[in-house]
Amino acid sequence: MAKLQGKGNCQTCPIRYRSIFADIPEDKLPEVIGDFRTSILTLTHNEVIYSEGDAPTHTYTLRKGLIKLTKSLPDGRIQIVRIIGHGELFGFDGLANENHNHTALALTDIEICKLPMSGLERIRINNPSVDKAMMQGWIQGLRAAENMLLDLGAKKAPERLASFLLKWCKDTEQGQWIDLPLSRTEIAELLGLTVETVSRFLSDWKRKGYIEDTRSTVRLVDSDGLNQVVDGYSK
Amino acid sequence: MAKLQGKGNCQTCPIRYRSIFADIPEDKLPEVIGDFRTSILTLTHNEVIYSEGDAPTHTYTLRKGLIKLTKSLPDGRIQIVRIIGHGELFGFDGLANENHNHTALALTDIEICKLPMSGLERIRINNPSVDKAMMQGWIQGLRAAENMLLDLGAKKAPERLASFLLKWCKDTEQGQWIDLPLSRTEIAELLGLTVETVSRFLSDWKRKGYIEDTRSTVRLVDSDGLNQVVDGYSK
Repeated sequence: MAKLQGKGNCQTCPIRYRSIFADIPEDKLPEVIGDFRTSILTLTHNEVIYSEGDAPTHTYTLRKGLIKLTKSLPDGRIQIVRIIGHGELFGFDGLANENHNHTALALTDIEICKLPMSGLERIRINNPSVDKAMMQGWIQGLRAAENMLLDLGAKKAPERLASFLLKWCKDTEQGQWIDLPLSRTEIAELLGLTVETVSRFLSDWKRKGYIEDTRSTVRLVDSDGLNQVVDGYSK
Repeated sequence: MAKLQGKGNCQTCPIRYRSIFADIPEDKLPEVIGDFRTSILTLTHNEVIYSEGDAPTHTYTLRKGLIKLTKSLPDGRIQIVRIIGHGELFGFDGLANENHNHTALALTDIEICKLPMSGLERIRINNPSVDKAMMQGWIQGLRAAENMLLDLGAKKAPERLASFLLKWCKDTEQGQWIDLPLSRTEIAELLGLTVETVSRFLSDWKRKGYIEDTRSTVRLVDSDGLNQVVDGYSK
């Protein structure tokens, strides 16, 4: 169950430099924050932060771990519409007077900061750096969604999966083990594939020596192999 | 080719009530707009407004017609990521210091208003109603993208096509002919399907008496039939 860890303190917050408050000078922070009261919560893997259709009272910043935003069809089929990384703001549909359009779930054990919506809106309106960070967050979110629509709509199944692995392992050295906190089912739900398709291609690529994996980690052994999978469809 | 029709005039603009300037009181408009100079352009079907990767200088409001925003893969496969309707703001990646993430093309003959980016940003910062309208536009854009990701990722081909037709014909009476300015190819590019799949299901549904269509119009004859296609997958 979600556990309240106490009040947030923007001045000592270890992820403030990645948050919408990053560009507020430290000496101005007490004045900007004023009586804005945040709280810190921890949740364990698979716990729900809010559900599609809920009326929002807060927005959230992720402090630790990863979150998945999902939408579902009446029969239970699920699509992951976004993965939230630390420092990111999420759950802001209330700022457009709307209920939450998706469900937010902990993909790992997580720590979040709850920001009261009305106080946040006051801070945004009065502080250009917060306003700019939030605007850029929305526009970047739209760009990420457009990229994902291209992946889901135009790429073939193996191309989609290979692109995902290459992107996930980007910025890590070839051969380095890295965390992959998505299960096979979650990878399928992110990429619009069946779990059988995901498993079949991963097995194929392990046999060919492109990747190695465990239940929760992956490493690229031969990224050229995966790049060829992607390029093979682009000729 | 794009034709300049002259300077824009927010005070006499027929679509202002649908634009980001909708909530500025008429008597305050001259003061808010100040020396902000817009221009009106007309473009014909399939003309490009801007291309993916272009450095933005303006944002745009659609005054007449429809626009498609597309992304493409190196081999030319195309995904339509959004359809823009009249009154909507588009082409705002420059506000996040980014180049355009998609290409914008006229889906019909169109009329657009070009808004210089720096002037618009000044107006937004100084006018809460413009700021609010733009914020709501971005959040609504994210919600629409999430809905589209659910369609592309989780729905089967016929379910996706039937949902699209039902949504497109929403708010029109059953049996009423309405414009469908997307070609079969464009419907395929929007729904992540092949054009053969789109044509096959449309033919099937015409034979079954669910729909009738011409090259550029469509009407629902039996929307229950299409609803059954959607519901049949949700059991």
